[in-house]
Amino acid sequence: MSEQKKPNRREFIVDSSAAIVGASAIGGTTSVSGQKRPAGEGASNASPSFTSPAGSTIPFSRDELLAQGKTRAFTLRRLTEIAFPLGGLGTGTVSLGGGGDLRDWEIFNRPNKGKALPFTFVALWTKKGSEAPVVKVVEAPIQPPFRGADGYPRERAQGLPRFKGATFGGTYPIAEIAFEDDTLPLGVTLEAFNPMIPLEVDDSALPVAIFRYRLTNRADAPVEAALAFSILNPIGYDGRANLGGNRFEGFGQNVTRLRREPPVVGLDLTSQKYEADSVRFGSMALVTTHAEVTARTSWEEGAWWDSFQKWFDEYAADGAFDEARDFGPSEDGVSAYATLAPRLRLAANESKAVEFILAWYFPLRENYWNREPEVRGRKLRNDYGTRFKDAWEVARHTAANLVRLERDTRAFRDTLTGGTLPAAVVDAVSSQMSIIRTNTCLLLEGRRFFAFEGTNDDSGCCPMNCTHVWNYEQALAHLYPELERSMRVTDFKVNLRPDGSMAFRTLVPVGRALWKFKPAADGQMGCILKLYREWQISGDEAFLRDLWPSARRALEYAWVQWDADRDGLMEGEQHNTYDIEFYGPNTMMGTLYLGALLAGERMARAVGDTEAAALYRQVFESGRGKLDREVWRDGYYVQRVPDPGQVKVQEVEQKEAWYASAVDKGALKYQYGEGCLSDQLLGQWFAMVVALGHVLPPEHVRETLRSIYRHNFRTSFFDHPNTQRLYALNDEKGLVLCSWPHGQRPALPFVYSDEVWTGIEYQVAAHLIYEGLVMEGLAITRAVRDRYDGERRNPWNEVECGSHYARALASWSLLLGLSGYEYSAPGARLVFNPRLSTANFRCLFTTGSGWGAYSQQIGRDEADGALELMGGSLVLKEFGFAREALGGPPLTALVNRAPVAARLGDAGIVVFDAPVQLKAGDNLEVRLRRRV
Amino acid sequence: MSEQKKPNRREFIVDSSAAIVGASAIGGTTSVSGQKRPAGEGASNASPSFTSPAGSTIPFSRDELLAQGKTRAFTLRRLTEIAFPLGGLGTGTVSLGGGGDLRDWEIFNRPNKGKALPFTFVALWTKKGSEAPVVKVVEAPIQPPFRGADGYPRERAQGLPRFKGATFGGTYPIAEIAFEDDTLPLGVTLEAFNPMIPLEVDDSALPVAIFRYRLTNRADAPVEAALAFSILNPIGYDGRANLGGNRFEGFGQNVTRLRREPPVVGLDLTSQKYEADSVRFGSMALVTTHAEVTARTSWEEGAWWDSFQKWFDEYAADGAFDEARDFGPSEDGVSAYATLAPRLRLAANESKAVEFILAWYFPLRENYWNREPEVRGRKLRNDYGTRFKDAWEVARHTAANLVRLERDTRAFRDTLTGGTLPAAVVDAVSSQMSIIRTNTCLLLEGRRFFAFEGTNDDSGCCPMNCTHVWNYEQALAHLYPELERSMRVTDFKVNLRPDGSMAFRTLVPVGRALWKFKPAADGQMGCILKLYREWQISGDEAFLRDLWPSARRALEYAWVQWDADRDGLMEGEQHNTYDIEFYGPNTMMGTLYLGALLAGERMARAVGDTEAAALYRQVFESGRGKLDREVWRDGYYVQRVPDPGQVKVQEVEQKEAWYASAVDKGALKYQYGEGCLSDQLLGQWFAMVVALGHVLPPEHVRETLRSIYRHNFRTSFFDHPNTQRLYALNDEKGLVLCSWPHGQRPALPFVYSDEVWTGIEYQVAAHLIYEGLVMEGLAITRAVRDRYDGERRNPWNEVECGSHYARALASWSLLLGLSGYEYSAPGARLVFNPRLSTANFRCLFTTGSGWGAYSQQIGRDEADGALELMGGSLVLKEFGFAREALGGPPLTALVNRAPVAARLGDAGIVVFDAPVQLKAGDNLEVRLRRRV
Repeated sequence: MSEQKKPNRREFIVDSSAAIVGASAIGGTTSVSGQKRPAGEGASNASPSFTSPAGSTIPFSRDELLAQGKTRAFTLRRLTEIAFPLGGLGTGTVSLGGGGDLRDWEIFNRPNKGKALPFTFVALWTKKGSEAPVVKVVEAPIQPPFRGADGYPRERAQGLPRFKGATFGGTYPIAEIAFEDDTLPLGVTLEAFNPMIPLEVDDSALPVAIFRYRLTNRADAPVEAALAFSILNPIGYDGRANLGGNRFEGFGQNVTRLRREPPVVGLDLTSQKYEADSVRFGSMALVTTHAEVTARTSWEEGAWWDSFQKWFDEYAADGAFDEARDFGPSEDGVSAYATLAPRLRLAANESKAVEFILAWYFPLRENYWNREPEVRGRKLRNDYGTRFKDAWEVARHTAANLVRLERDTRAFRDTLTGGTLPAAVVDAVSSQMSIIRTNTCLLLEGRRFFAFEGTNDDSGCCPMNCTHVWNYEQALAHLYPELERSMRVTDFKVNLRPDGSMAFRTLVPVGRALWKFKPAADGQMGCILKLYREWQISGDEAFLRDLWPSARRALEYAWVQWDADRDGLMEGEQHNTYDIEFYGPNTMMGTLYLGALLAGERMARAVGDTEAAALYRQVFESGRGKLDREVWRDGYYVQRVPDPGQVKVQEVEQKEAWYASAVDKGALKYQYGEGCLSDQLLGQWFAMVVALGHVLPPEHVRETLRSIYRHNFRTSFFDHPNTQRLYALNDEKGLVLCSWPHGQRPALPFVYSDEVWTGIEYQVAAHLIYEGLVMEGLAITRAVRDRYDGERRNPWNEVECGSHYARALASWSLLLGLSGYEYSAPGARLVFNPRLSTANFRCLFTTGSGWGAYSQQIGRDEADGALELMGGSLVLKEFGFAREALGGPPLTALVNRAPVAARLGDAGIVVFDAPVQLKAGDNLEVRLRRRV
Repeated sequence: MSEQKKPNRREFIVDSSAAIVGASAIGGTTSVSGQKRPAGEGASNASPSFTSPAGSTIPFSRDELLAQGKTRAFTLRRLTEIAFPLGGLGTGTVSLGGGGDLRDWEIFNRPNKGKALPFTFVALWTKKGSEAPVVKVVEAPIQPPFRGADGYPRERAQGLPRFKGATFGGTYPIAEIAFEDDTLPLGVTLEAFNPMIPLEVDDSALPVAIFRYRLTNRADAPVEAALAFSILNPIGYDGRANLGGNRFEGFGQNVTRLRREPPVVGLDLTSQKYEADSVRFGSMALVTTHAEVTARTSWEEGAWWDSFQKWFDEYAADGAFDEARDFGPSEDGVSAYATLAPRLRLAANESKAVEFILAWYFPLRENYWNREPEVRGRKLRNDYGTRFKDAWEVARHTAANLVRLERDTRAFRDTLTGGTLPAAVVDAVSSQMSIIRTNTCLLLEGRRFFAFEGTNDDSGCCPMNCTHVWNYEQALAHLYPELERSMRVTDFKVNLRPDGSMAFRTLVPVGRALWKFKPAADGQMGCILKLYREWQISGDEAFLRDLWPSARRALEYAWVQWDADRDGLMEGEQHNTYDIEFYGPNTMMGTLYLGALLAGERMARAVGDTEAAALYRQVFESGRGKLDREVWRDGYYVQRVPDPGQVKVQEVEQKEAWYASAVDKGALKYQYGEGCLSDQLLGQWFAMVVALGHVLPPEHVRETLRSIYRHNFRTSFFDHPNTQRLYALNDEKGLVLCSWPHGQRPALPFVYSDEVWTGIEYQVAAHLIYEGLVMEGLAITRAVRDRYDGERRNPWNEVECGSHYARALASWSLLLGLSGYEYSAPGARLVFNPRLSTANFRCLFTTGSGWGAYSQQIGRDEADGALELMGGSLVLKEFGFAREALGGPPLTALVNRAPVAARLGDAGIVVFDAPVQLKAGDNLEVRLRRRV
């Protein structure tokens, strides 16, 4: 390029937009099922922008933000990073790679990123008429780079022919792949899933992965076929070593048997090496409901590649294996590969499905993550370990219940995807709810739910139940409220210290020791709001009464440490989710505190603690005004940072050490001061989620949200110097944690200020939506998901300090915000107030007792709101919808098309004369005159 | 996709040709220097094919094969896998990444793939007039995937702004990068190299990497600039750990000083922790010849990211650092980062270069690779460790000699690239000659050259001097014949056993023990051919006489083990480079044996051992006929595999064990039988390389080569089932080791039969070219290099059983074959007979004493041949060129334009009346009448 010349358009694209060029060139838009066109993939940099109703610049087209329907489809390079987790609550997972491979075997009670079981793959055999048979691994071609000092790894049969292409689609929890190869007479698709049904913990906590391959004969002649599912018997694996073959120190005495127990037949993979109290004790099972199978319980042994070569030659010859005899026990340090090969014939144009159930059973784990001697090395029993005795039983249970499990899973999935939510929102909500079923989370015996913040590649990260990170999570609370309540029990029954401070991490097994570290202001206040939420969702007053005394002490600890003068303004040393301390008033802590006070008032009143209720209200009223006055500036809230000398350090004798680490060149380190903090309305967002309303002036809240979008949402990171951690690069878009639009950036601002966290992006996006800044919220949501496009990163694994990071569970609040969901079990009240597509809206909803679909149609004259209950039950005294659009009577209310008596109450809420009782399958419809 | 519908063309491309679509979309064709257009990149699948003169289908266009000039240029994704090694003979290397980063720090006496030194990078600071200054890392944007459980790694400053794009070019040993960013007033290019001059071992064995950044002011106003080269003081590093920062067990007592010793100024990086006899003892130096510098000998320490943030803020402010004081000694386990920052001003449109010399000095290594107690853990001194006392001295030496070193390096590089060879051949020859300067090879004190076969990621692979793998190598022999001779000394002075068999691997230090394993038939015969080559290249008769007695015993060992009946046909157990044994007659061993006999005859005659000479001739004459008769079939040579019962096992008592491992279902395992083996003319190829002529009937040789091309060159690997190792995938092209075109593939053929090895591809390609099947040879060459395209694999690292695999050094024979090079120092004879571009041909040549350019022009009436000697000296009695085109006298011979007397001798060879003596800078020109 000449020195003077500016690049022309094409050169600019070629030079600077590598990822995008790749994306637009290869991005697939073909939906797997061909149903709806997914929201426009790729080419986002070339997209037109538009101005939102609120005046913001939105760097997407309206279509990109608003297109509804199924989530994305991925091909080619966008397959490479995909690892779709298959597993239940607290069972661990094995992931389905974008091309159809199995990777990240995280079923052994720990994360295991990037590892695979050798020679564990599925291969199709086909023979059409007298043509030569063909064997193809049912996976897409491998994409560059082809690294490896000994060539590209061969341990996953990458050297065998495979399909020419694949399109990966589906929405969590159901993955779909369409394999394509025009040289074959058969078309092949795969659906893979683990049952997931809201509220149904046991059904959603099965240690299985279900694979349904559908073979379709595209030829005009019959075709013979087989599907060989090969697997290493991995019993004895430590869950983290890089296995290169069937030798490993933990192997030995492995036994593999072919069991025919109709309706299932399959491989029972066990080992006699470990006692039941060993963390390596366990079993696996690979079964099919297809009756005609051949199998190998062990591949022939041999030198060099003999074993694999002989396996291939045997299978290639006629798509079958000699009758399998029991294998094992193997010698020490050695295991074996086995193959289960259903065999079938397809008439011309016929289509048949073959189903595999892969089950595992590793009931014990041990605490490897804490150093504290009271808990380190202690064994913990998975809840599923108390329900089954081995993997074979799991497989049989799953097969016996599969019709029901799949029906309800599909209803849940289809309700989530089949509504009117924008595709990127469905994508964000569905993909991230997977976190609760990854190794980030544990479900221990007695259905006690525990969780890391996320996972390192082979260990959990930042144990356990961290109150401030889990502040952002809303999915578990709404999907499995019973499990969320178990976290509150841990918060208040285990982690409350005598002084009222809470250990903000949990040492498991609980009850042996408390974590020693200063309390977190945001986490502790969040726990009060969460308790309120659990009570509202469940209506469980006994639960509230049980925890209230502790919760009260935890809330009032604010007056010891953070708001000593009880003026409703936190000023003390506020340790928080940025792993540092804020000093002085700020709205991030301040709104959480105000929200907690408001929630505390309501809970106190509910349990009859009226004195406390009044006191909380009084502090709240003082604080809400003070906070707004103290830190409102120019469109958003700032932090009032004290001089270091003003800081009251808790333990005076450490003042000097504190000063050395907290002060640099006379200024407090790691504050944000005049910055525009994305999290500055965190407590206000939570208050919206639990329908507590505004804790700061609504007009300031909205202006602040607009400012956050304007100042912190970046449409490129090319010129964003960041010495911190990197979650957005190059041409990507994302919301930074903080910016200083008016200057005065501290020399050393808080340590994550230049980063981009998806959990905060979802929190802000949902909050924008709650306040009617819908396009802004959707733009941020779309930006996140564009960064997780299958080529850059795995769409089913948003990372922060670890994979499957819990903060991203905030994405559930997008659903809450867009539907304007408000639910109170104690009040038997359910209200929707959609922010989008109000004329014709439909979405999933859940409550503590039942779940289903909410829909509304606002016509010219009438407004209809309806519930279809798909699971559980629901009692309603009040029902509200699209209140702004509603007029008055006549009012029609129908349950399963039978009228029930109702009237229009305050604020447009429909009040039933007698509580309406809905059970799964029931409908409620309400029709009102449209407001004119 | 509907079940019946076949995919249309576009869908097919989208589904199945991922790599190619990516390649054609993004492949760069812009040459860095803009000189010549490189041979058409990308879109190779879409290329037209044509039929060669010999009737083969060539799956490229003529232009793709024949385009001359510089090798490839890489952009975008094709930058990602590039690691261009910078280092000298036996010094280790650090690699320049495609985007400008430094990676694979292999200067610590072992391989170290994928590792980087944290915060070691170069950052540009610029300021134009009163505009705000800008800092950009001088690297291209990072390409997806963006993996990392804590986000994308930040340890290499990936979070700082960087250039928008880069184009990587250059030809080994000189790398070139053009960085582009239209937002900057400056254009930046980089040249990086290590001096490499044929025959000059010391000059080519400097432990340095030289970086020259050229800054060009594209603005009409002055621009201030700085280039900050930051580096970790890594003294104490073990050369393999994954460093995440400046803490490591080996660090401590690190000292970094800024030394100003004109003409250099720079950082002297040392440690006081290790004594001189420690393998971790050593030092580094980073100097520049730019006088105006500021520097930091250590970055400020701090919590969290303080250190990097403060460094950035200081540099960003004014492109300079506070005056540096000596740093250290550091506390135990800790080192520090340092920065050297030349500062300059560029007038409008001015261009200036800034040069950095990075030197290292780690004189000792230890044998970590053998288990034998006699050698394991023994320390070995690098040759460079005997020439310098520390890295600072290396840097000063390099700076003092840089003009000369660079001039000669550039002359070598430009002669290689500037001729008329096809670009892919230049690419194959130049890129792979880098192997001799990687960690595959050692240069120990006394200039003793040793080598692995290749390297694992952090250890050498398959030690040492493996005779059969190094059979294929021709580059070292022709570039540094002195070093190649040291390998012959090892072969014959160290590894010959009393019974005449040779240990085919070497235990170092030598002289302590011999490797215990059966001899390799191919390796041992190859050693005889290699000895002959070294004698022909060097003319060193003393060397020959010294080694001849051992060589004779090694040759005649054939009659003990492999050809007991001395009929010239090897029939015994022939262990070979496929790591198994062949049984029965085959031409792979057979041609090596015949070639060895022929070479043996000539050497015997030269040393006066006429009896042996006659005997070898007799066996040769017997064998050449017998071999052809025994195994010629249908267009190529097969292997006559005996029945297991016929095999004479050496040690009778082990017959049973042998049978168990060598026989499967009654057949010998790991043979090729009726297969078409790519290596079947290996010895014939070697005989051509050393001008011994045909050992098998020429018409059979040519037909066999055509068959190998036809049967074994694959244009796609989609349907190539391979249970072995994987070096070619998907749509790639490559030559498989064997095929069975007429069936009869053994159940378990030899263990690498389905693989693709670049070393064999080059051997076959060169052999095709020798026999005039030029297009076939070029097609194979091009196919190899297309697989190493920067996106799939690193163009400067061809892998087989390890990286930088020695067998690929066979690529030098492409140069020999295309130029028809024949040289005999004893005969003082140099002959060229180009196979391509004969009308106007130019290429590099080397001899044992001098090197330079050969060129010829064949006009309508006249034929000119010329030598320009660029280094060393050369004595010639005979000179031949383009013999088929030549006519008779008149003959003109000129040395430096002065006539010398000559006549036309036999076979068109020009014979000088008196030996012509050329020294560097001299020219020889010969002109003859053109044959009509």
